[in-house]
Amino acid sequence: MAKEIKIGLLGSGTVGTGVVRVLRENAEDISKKVGAELSIKKVLVRDTSKKRAYLEDVQLTDDAQDIIADPEIDIVVELLGGLHPAFEYMLAAMQNGKHVVTANKDVVAQLGHELFDAAEQHGVEFKFEASVGGGIPIITPLKECLTGNRITEIMGIVNGTTNYMLTRMTEDGSDYDSVLKEAQAKGYAEANPAADVEGLDAARKAAILASISFNSRIALEQVSVEGITNIEPADINYANELGYVIKLLAVAKDYGEKGVNVRVHPVFLPTSHPLAAVKDVFNAIFLRGNAIGDAMFYGRGAGSLPTASAVVADIIGEARNIVSKVPAVIGCTCYNHRKFCPLEETESSYYVRLHVDDEPGVLGAIASAFGESGVSLKSVIQTRKVGDHAEIVAVTHIVQHKHLQEAADILQKLPVVDSIRSIIRVEED
Amino acid sequence: MAKEIKIGLLGSGTVGTGVVRVLRENAEDISKKVGAELSIKKVLVRDTSKKRAYLEDVQLTDDAQDIIADPEIDIVVELLGGLHPAFEYMLAAMQNGKHVVTANKDVVAQLGHELFDAAEQHGVEFKFEASVGGGIPIITPLKECLTGNRITEIMGIVNGTTNYMLTRMTEDGSDYDSVLKEAQAKGYAEANPAADVEGLDAARKAAILASISFNSRIALEQVSVEGITNIEPADINYANELGYVIKLLAVAKDYGEKGVNVRVHPVFLPTSHPLAAVKDVFNAIFLRGNAIGDAMFYGRGAGSLPTASAVVADIIGEARNIVSKVPAVIGCTCYNHRKFCPLEETESSYYVRLHVDDEPGVLGAIASAFGESGVSLKSVIQTRKVGDHAEIVAVTHIVQHKHLQEAADILQKLPVVDSIRSIIRVEED
Repeated sequence: MAKEIKIGLLGSGTVGTGVVRVLRENAEDISKKVGAELSIKKVLVRDTSKKRAYLEDVQLTDDAQDIIADPEIDIVVELLGGLHPAFEYMLAAMQNGKHVVTANKDVVAQLGHELFDAAEQHGVEFKFEASVGGGIPIITPLKECLTGNRITEIMGIVNGTTNYMLTRMTEDGSDYDSVLKEAQAKGYAEANPAADVEGLDAARKAAILASISFNSRIALEQVSVEGITNIEPADINYANELGYVIKLLAVAKDYGEKGVNVRVHPVFLPTSHPLAAVKDVFNAIFLRGNAIGDAMFYGRGAGSLPTASAVVADIIGEARNIVSKVPAVIGCTCYNHRKFCPLEETESSYYVRLHVDDEPGVLGAIASAFGESGVSLKSVIQTRKVGDHAEIVAVTHIVQHKHLQEAADILQKLPVVDSIRSIIRVEED
Repeated sequence: MAKEIKIGLLGSGTVGTGVVRVLRENAEDISKKVGAELSIKKVLVRDTSKKRAYLEDVQLTDDAQDIIADPEIDIVVELLGGLHPAFEYMLAAMQNGKHVVTANKDVVAQLGHELFDAAEQHGVEFKFEASVGGGIPIITPLKECLTGNRITEIMGIVNGTTNYMLTRMTEDGSDYDSVLKEAQAKGYAEANPAADVEGLDAARKAAILASISFNSRIALEQVSVEGITNIEPADINYANELGYVIKLLAVAKDYGEKGVNVRVHPVFLPTSHPLAAVKDVFNAIFLRGNAIGDAMFYGRGAGSLPTASAVVADIIGEARNIVSKVPAVIGCTCYNHRKFCPLEETESSYYVRLHVDDEPGVLGAIASAFGESGVSLKSVIQTRKVGDHAEIVAVTHIVQHKHLQEAADILQKLPVVDSIRSIIRVEED
């Protein structure tokens, strides 16, 4: 085996260390699979003098150009995260004829098309399996294994932090603030948890999944986003009573001529749904295709070795093509231009929880307010006293989002309504 | 788009019809994805005069040579099932320079290596995603997405018939005979259900999954097989009481220096295990890799359109390579020769159900018999009267299979033991 394929790593954090470990521990098998030795030639670090586990015998550099411009390096692996300078580094690497692998959801969601263009222009490959779902194979399955399907729907648990928090709220009865602290203590949530709990991390992954599934570029700005910061123990309990669990989902649905809609929000999922059993930091992507029907991909959405599993798979894919002297067969798959269906036009059943005056006739007033907006109710129940108020929970039939919003506006103004505590979509079987 | 890629279908049954439908209904998207039109030139049928839905405007032939020897046909899709003449047809197609796609688990499990050799020799591709798990992407994920991992364990629900039957026994409390009749009435089980209920269908899939996962050819004859024919309602009930469900699994495990073992048998799975939620005719493959950790792939394991989803993905894969003038990059992946670990050397916890004489001291005699064989018990409980006998259920700690067998031999001979009703492996969390 004469050929050696040289890799440059931009980034030496959790994932970078994992990539080094996997390439090293599975080296013998990997070289048989590729037909060449894969070696890490250089790693970009902030401080070359700092000692690092697993990187003892690797050349460290604090200058990205040392890697991007090294003519011996075949594959550049970008693991810095964030838009800049990660994007510029990858672009420069491609311009220098290097294949690129990244785990960077920010760049793929926002500037992926520019990198696809550059890859095509310079005859190199661009792969990003790790950008969604960590170790879970989903990009390649969508681009290859499910490519005979028209995908009509994707629903993913793609953020481990929030899934951990919702699982703990469901199983332990804890409130939001205490599970957030617990998640931070365990290293599952960052000191500033906004990107996770407000749904922005999931939104990036939603844009990537939707773009590939619908073969049409979905911009991050198009994705409507709602996080889990308003979920209260009462919502968790009602979900449980009604036979559901609350999950934060990245959702991409095809509404036919109305277009496609992509969004992130909490959902009441029936306990019988395959995604309902996905707990703690695990991720899963559920999808529906016009041939395969329902399918789901489950695994660890983050972590050093799981994410490295996806990064190394991409490296091996590119290395195999280098050995076989074969160009990238599948590039950008966004050959369609689908209309975007506004959130208002999407349809769902909804759970609505209200605090109202505890007096006779309130239930009727609430029901009328829904009726005025054309929102038909499946059930409305007055449940318990909360301080001076009564709590009412309504579940609607399937209605357009704009009608639900109209109903909410009317309810808001009713003298008997103190506050709308929650509005959460309900996914039916 | 000048190029047209011509396909010949061997077989026009459930899956063949599905392939025609998917290629037709998704034709516009597929041609964009491939960069060429895919057209079905000829279909092999038994009786060319019979009218067939979806095949009105396709050329039918009752002579396989019309397809195999047609110089215009680029890809031959084999959907006949069974070893012969399917194998010979595929071999001849390859010799004629045609790429081959099959859904045939029999041929892949037993003669796959010969087809890989032929494909390499003749410079064509050989793909078989649909041979395991129907529509579920698993072959490509194993060969590409997870290829950076050392796979240590695969457990798959790969037979929809038996999963349907076990689900109904669990949820409805029915017995084996009545769920078999129900499954037959619904078309989920064949008139002669042996291949499904005795585990042979799952064994073929186990051999395929294991060969790819361990990169070492596992012959069908090496797979030890036990079906579900002896599962009684009592076992289902005890599983439920103890926090498990019974599933028929295809299992492939790496025992390190002892080798790899591949087998099919029922298992007590903890209800918290991701596979435990896989119900009815759905299939799922759970695996563990040294980088990804635990992952699972879930979907429909059979049926016209789901299986066609996988077949069409393989067709598109080969068509893309034809368009890009690129050879197959990944051929046979069995570059290792792993030792096979005999079943006797494998380890598990076991559930054992016995009918014994209803008299004092029996529990002690049973416990001693296990002890003599070095089988340590986690629990042994005398549960209920069954006719003249008492029923005893024992759950062992993890022991070697041969020791459990020794214990069973001793128990069998004890005067107080009437019969050993069941021995089922218990999978721990």
